[in-house]
Amino acid sequence: MRQFTSVADVPDVQAMIQEALALKANPFAFQHLGKNKTLGLVFLNPSLRTRMSTQIAAQHLGMQVITLNADKDGWALEFQDGAVMNGATVEHIRDAAPVLGSYCDVIGVRCFPGLQHRETDDQEHIMRQFIRYTGKPYVSLESATLHPLQSLADAITLTENRPKHRPRVVLSWAPHIKPIPHAVANSFAEWMNRMDVELVITHPEGYELNPAYSGTARVEYNQQKALEGADFVYVKNWSSYRDYGKILPQDPSWMLTLSHLNATNQARVMHCLPVRRNVELSDEILDSPASLVQEQARNRVFAAQAVLKQLLEKN
Amino acid sequence: MRQFTSVADVPDVQAMIQEALALKANPFAFQHLGKNKTLGLVFLNPSLRTRMSTQIAAQHLGMQVITLNADKDGWALEFQDGAVMNGATVEHIRDAAPVLGSYCDVIGVRCFPGLQHRETDDQEHIMRQFIRYTGKPYVSLESATLHPLQSLADAITLTENRPKHRPRVVLSWAPHIKPIPHAVANSFAEWMNRMDVELVITHPEGYELNPAYSGTARVEYNQQKALEGADFVYVKNWSSYRDYGKILPQDPSWMLTLSHLNATNQARVMHCLPVRRNVELSDEILDSPASLVQEQARNRVFAAQAVLKQLLEKN
Amino acid sequence: MRQFTSVADVPDVQAMIQEALALKANPFAFQHLGKNKTLGLVFLNPSLRTRMSTQIAAQHLGMQVITLNADKDGWALEFQDGAVMNGATVEHIRDAAPVLGSYCDVIGVRCFPGLQHRETDDQEHIMRQFIRYTGKPYVSLESATLHPLQSLADAITLTENRPKHRPRVVLSWAPHIKPIPHAVANSFAEWMNRMDVELVITHPEGYELNPAYSGTARVEYNQQKALEGADFVYVKNWSSYRDYGKILPQDPSWMLTLSHLNATNQARVMHCLPVRRNVELSDEILDSPASLVQEQARNRVFAAQAVLKQLLEKN
Repeated sequence: MRQFTSVADVPDVQAMIQEALALKANPFAFQHLGKNKTLGLVFLNPSLRTRMSTQIAAQHLGMQVITLNADKDGWALEFQDGAVMNGATVEHIRDAAPVLGSYCDVIGVRCFPGLQHRETDDQEHIMRQFIRYTGKPYVSLESATLHPLQSLADAITLTENRPKHRPRVVLSWAPHIKPIPHAVANSFAEWMNRMDVELVITHPEGYELNPAYSGTARVEYNQQKALEGADFVYVKNWSSYRDYGKILPQDPSWMLTLSHLNATNQARVMHCLPVRRNVELSDEILDSPASLVQEQARNRVFAAQAVLKQLLEKN
Repeated sequence: MRQFTSVADVPDVQAMIQEALALKANPFAFQHLGKNKTLGLVFLNPSLRTRMSTQIAAQHLGMQVITLNADKDGWALEFQDGAVMNGATVEHIRDAAPVLGSYCDVIGVRCFPGLQHRETDDQEHIMRQFIRYTGKPYVSLESATLHPLQSLADAITLTENRPKHRPRVVLSWAPHIKPIPHAVANSFAEWMNRMDVELVITHPEGYELNPAYSGTARVEYNQQKALEGADFVYVKNWSSYRDYGKILPQDPSWMLTLSHLNATNQARVMHCLPVRRNVELSDEILDSPASLVQEQARNRVFAAQAVLKQLLEKN
Repeated sequence: MRQFTSVADVPDVQAMIQEALALKANPFAFQHLGKNKTLGLVFLNPSLRTRMSTQIAAQHLGMQVITLNADKDGWALEFQDGAVMNGATVEHIRDAAPVLGSYCDVIGVRCFPGLQHRETDDQEHIMRQFIRYTGKPYVSLESATLHPLQSLADAITLTENRPKHRPRVVLSWAPHIKPIPHAVANSFAEWMNRMDVELVITHPEGYELNPAYSGTARVEYNQQKALEGADFVYVKNWSSYRDYGKILPQDPSWMLTLSHLNATNQARVMHCLPVRRNVELSDEILDSPASLVQEQARNRVFAAQAVLKQLLEKN
């Protein structure tokens, strides 16, 4: 594996989940794999879990890590080809990225979408340039459209908590006060579509995801109906894709509470964090045994470690 | 020792000082103790000495360190239970802290007081939540009311420079232009109350410290009288505790100058840094051999190392 | 070598270039030299290449690195002797620098000029204080007047690409939208004056460099004439030194394009990065094989490593 930007980059999803679980059981087994290797992490946006879990995963593998908060530590980057740089941006990605590539053995970048221009975001203009111009193995720390490290951690958590029957997984849209990217939802959908689960997506009309990622998953606009018989409920807000980046009129009853779980099959509840408590999800769920959010967060370490291991092995 | 938030957490103050001095003589003797362990340092406020000395102490013990400037690198944190998070805060401490706890083996947090609500600050609402929800050994990097790593470094410095007789130690309030927390003064007082010294506290009326920390130390409102026969003068500003967080009318003559030292027993002068030169302390003292401020700063490394060692040994 | 602030600190420029090339061939050969040593990097200004390449160089040598963004992570620093610190600055360099010195084995500082007061900048007031008050081996990460790590990387790159004849090197001023320091240009000039090359400096009238650094290099106001027969063209903007820190009326034709290279000896083009594309240099040059900018950036690692190695050996 040369890059990890989507489930499409993964040769064998089940094998990767099993590798992550093996690393979780024995985190320091491959400490020599990363010896004298440097991981460069570039953040164009804030990060808590991704920043820390990826660093720890790299350290488990014996790698050195250099973290760069792009605009704060370094220089404001320009991404437009042919730009006459007489404005606010100080360095072009065509110049900065090869430098990063020559300094580091593996590159990870977080680059959220602008949520202004759907086509630009969909084309992953920024990520594509980092991949192209660094020329090094690449791990997405969340891009404009996808967050595969999160989804791999989600898949690990589902596997650890899987019932004996084929589980019903419901991705349930939740209210929020800000326009939120689609990356976690898109990514969760495309990973679930590769696993042996039944995926149902529920959201108010107008919040349809890009079918490139949601695929053939059943969409059910009635949340209560969607939740019937669910084994897992993944709660997440996203802004409208159709009316790109907009928040449509919101019904606060979409916030998941314990009473929403009545019709489920004692569903476990998932969320990628950070979560807006009592807006997306109620306190009572997050603080109950139904919640898997901490297990998901913990598995971020081993998701990242499995990915870095595979990138290092092909290096 | 499972947490280090106050002198009350320390089983044996003298033994801890001796341990720090032994580490100072031989900093790399326990390099295997921290192997494959990660220290997570969270800063809700700026830090120079604490940030650097704690990192170096951890590295002496072979630990990895991850530093997080909470609001800048990560997400703005919410600390109120039951909050409906439809405002500026993005992640609740109940969700963020367990993640930190699952990623790291030891947690350190710096959380200054707001200086708005005395009761909230006194209850150490923020620190208590970090301790409770991370569930890991905890070292305070300065909390709302105490700064025990500083006080341990101060105690080490006093021990190294101790005269043969029982020393007289004067904590002398100093002017400042901003409302400053009580943590260093409180903490110094409670540590001195556990050592074999005579502690005198001097300040203008209205600046009385919380007696929970100053204990039975004699308070002398006349600075010159307080300084008579002093072996050590610890200079520090703090805002009013009674009129909470306020600066009362200030007399600039409280700034310590060389002439203030005339009546002392050739006192050595201490300050935790950063110091406002020629406001709290005159240049002439800071640049004279009377000053111990650099020795104090240097000892921060070994204070932190002794604490981390004890936290790791119980881990 | 106890400090690296200028070519004047280097006992043998050729030997240092050769040492850097040897390290490039075998980066991990001296991994035990930095064992249990800490490099402290202080940034008063942004940095991408210097920050990353110096960290990686230190890690190649087995050193630990602590990075401090001075005003953001720590406290705003005061540099005036005798200041009454009742304003915005929180800690005096006389207090902060010895602490850094006691925590770290080697210190590196980036401190750009203010470009307001020529004399203050020329005296390297800030750097001098860091050197004096830390008391430790010191590497400049770019000071008010010089950027020797960049120049050493430039000298390495020139050496690797040197033709058989004595090369003609042209330092060619370029347009820019902001007042830019003279450090890279000064430093390049003083290093070239120590190498076996012919140095020509070309710029519009009014942009004369401080002769303390440009020395006896020929100045040619006609850019096209200067470029004739050039083997290397180093493109760089700087503000006026005479009319200190000002931008004089600019002629955009000074931007280097491919057609400027017609009269050269198939010149290779250099720039320290970050570069304002299509303002200082055209895309067509930067994206052509004539460009050496990525080689220069890559050599920053080995420049820093050669310097750190020599500082550690004298430590």
